[in-house]
Amino acid sequence: MASEFDLIARYFTRTAPTGLLGVGDDCALFPVPTGEQVATSTDLLLEGRHFFPDVDPKALGHKALAVNLSDLAAMGARPIGCVLGLALPRLDEPWLAAFAEGFHALAAVHGCPLIGGDTTRSAHDLAISVTVFGAVPAGAALRRDAAQAGDDIWVSGELGAADVAYRLLDGQYPTDPERLAATRGALEWPEPQVALGLALRGIAHAAIDISDGLLQDLGHILAASRVGAVLHEDRLPAAAALAGLPVDALRRAVLGGGDVYQLCFTAPAARRDAVLAAARTAGARVTRVGGIVAHEPAQDAMQASAVTHAGGSSEIPGAARPRLMVLDATGQPLAQLPAGFDHFPGA
Amino acid sequence: MASEFDLIARYFTRTAPTGLLGVGDDCALFPVPTGEQVATSTDLLLEGRHFFPDVDPKALGHKALAVNLSDLAAMGARPIGCVLGLALPRLDEPWLAAFAEGFHALAAVHGCPLIGGDTTRSAHDLAISVTVFGAVPAGAALRRDAAQAGDDIWVSGELGAADVAYRLLDGQYPTDPERLAATRGALEWPEPQVALGLALRGIAHAAIDISDGLLQDLGHILAASRVGAVLHEDRLPAAAALAGLPVDALRRAVLGGGDVYQLCFTAPAARRDAVLAAARTAGARVTRVGGIVAHEPAQDAMQASAVTHAGGSSEIPGAARPRLMVLDATGQPLAQLPAGFDHFPGA
Repeated sequence: MASEFDLIARYFTRTAPTGLLGVGDDCALFPVPTGEQVATSTDLLLEGRHFFPDVDPKALGHKALAVNLSDLAAMGARPIGCVLGLALPRLDEPWLAAFAEGFHALAAVHGCPLIGGDTTRSAHDLAISVTVFGAVPAGAALRRDAAQAGDDIWVSGELGAADVAYRLLDGQYPTDPERLAATRGALEWPEPQVALGLALRGIAHAAIDISDGLLQDLGHILAASRVGAVLHEDRLPAAAALAGLPVDALRRAVLGGGDVYQLCFTAPAARRDAVLAAARTAGARVTRVGGIVAHEPAQDAMQASAVTHAGGSSEIPGAARPRLMVLDATGQPLAQLPAGFDHFPGA
Repeated sequence: MASEFDLIARYFTRTAPTGLLGVGDDCALFPVPTGEQVATSTDLLLEGRHFFPDVDPKALGHKALAVNLSDLAAMGARPIGCVLGLALPRLDEPWLAAFAEGFHALAAVHGCPLIGGDTTRSAHDLAISVTVFGAVPAGAALRRDAAQAGDDIWVSGELGAADVAYRLLDGQYPTDPERLAATRGALEWPEPQVALGLALRGIAHAAIDISDGLLQDLGHILAASRVGAVLHEDRLPAAAALAGLPVDALRRAVLGGGDVYQLCFTAPAARRDAVLAAARTAGARVTRVGGIVAHEPAQDAMQASAVTHAGGSSEIPGAARPRLMVLDATGQPLAQLPAGFDHFPGA
């Protein structure tokens, strides 16, 4: 009865590092340094919702862990380990081997070994559940609610490529093999910014990872911190592969495109040199794209009926200043902002 | 787009206790006392594999957390918190409300608040992923590999009721409403033995929770600890509701029946009073059912081709002594042992 799932287990059993009790007891055990807290995040990824059924399984194994590591990065937490739940509609050994290879390779890069898991047969859907654990000194986590007026807003890496790759693969854009080749890596092989998150501890005030689009995710920081923001469109680091796209598609990709897994963070203007030094240390590119501004609670109340979410497109012209403004190259606010876009709707 | 899943989130958002950063940031954060380790376990439950599609959703919410808390209990770990991944094929608000009620009620009993999660729409299957976190002083965890020759073997609670309820509901046994009523609670509302696990720290050597059947789970202790065991059938605490079953069905339920979520543990014979006192403290019933014996590595080698797993039914008469023997009331070893039974095969 268990034999085929023993086979599955084989792909996911690794010798746990010293101090970690891995697969093979009721629980996995791991130590936490004195004075540190545990940071944890969980994601449930489903075929057809979070990835295309024909995605390269090695890329899928990578991405299933990457999206969780990205949450640790956004808290400034150091990865400790992870657990994996896998529901498989069929036993496909080459698929499993490739998935495990992609998963373990990224786990090794970030020192985040698989220390436990559960595999099961599903009736229809392929489902992947990953929970990651990290450690962060008490009080040092980069939270969403710590942005302050006067902070700069920064973004790591580039924006927009994953959105364009998704829409090309989904048939929303005309076939364009060259552009797909230039953007697909961003969608399928996101690189979680763990080193940058660690380097920004003590420097950045607030941070989030961009999973649902810059406007929507920055909006979470603004709402939690009760502040506003002004972004400069011409400073946003659009991926080079977006060159030549119509302006609407470009804006949608850069401002609203999800699946980015770069960091958006805020830091005091006085710490610009420290931010740049942290990025060098982490081998990351960072771009200063705007600033945090005060946002009066009264404005929130006035807008409550008009604005459904930060970064939404339902601002009323002439109403109180919106929480989030994007200025174009001439310094004029964009009248229409793309809504945050969660790839694979309903997810 | 997100509105219906905002609704879902509402059922699963609770104010996190002091010191825990709950739902609403990239990660949840929790402190771990100095000198303690984190214990974690994850389970992925699927409709039709781990529960019947028409199960009471309140019971399902309870059980989804209970099976994970049972893993903490088996390590002697104190619950800290949990995260929940939920893939739903449809939005059914009364179902969700009942599921959340069952989940949160058990979480409150055990001080294990929901601190993070992920909800998503699935194409077909209902999938529930729970990961629990607990804390245990370094070196104090009840492990599988710590049983010693001379230890008593103990079992908490009663055995066999869940197996009978499962087979009645599955149509394997003739309809018997009275027996179903007397056994169903054991299958659908298992009570994780968290308090007992904590009380046994420093007393028990090895422990495991009985999820796949006493023989199979005890077999994991024996294999990990490189020891053997002798059980006395007439000491096993069969549930009263099993009275009148044919002897084969009774043995299958008591020795092989899964979904028990009681503890099987070993402790030195010199600590019998301490075990009983711990059980009283925890409000648990415990029964001494056998003993751990030496098991020579040479015997393992001799049996390697004949014995596929501990507790299996493929012992060869006349071969070296098996790792696990069950003696009947006359002191004779049972020739045939039921294999461990994992309800919902393939899970």
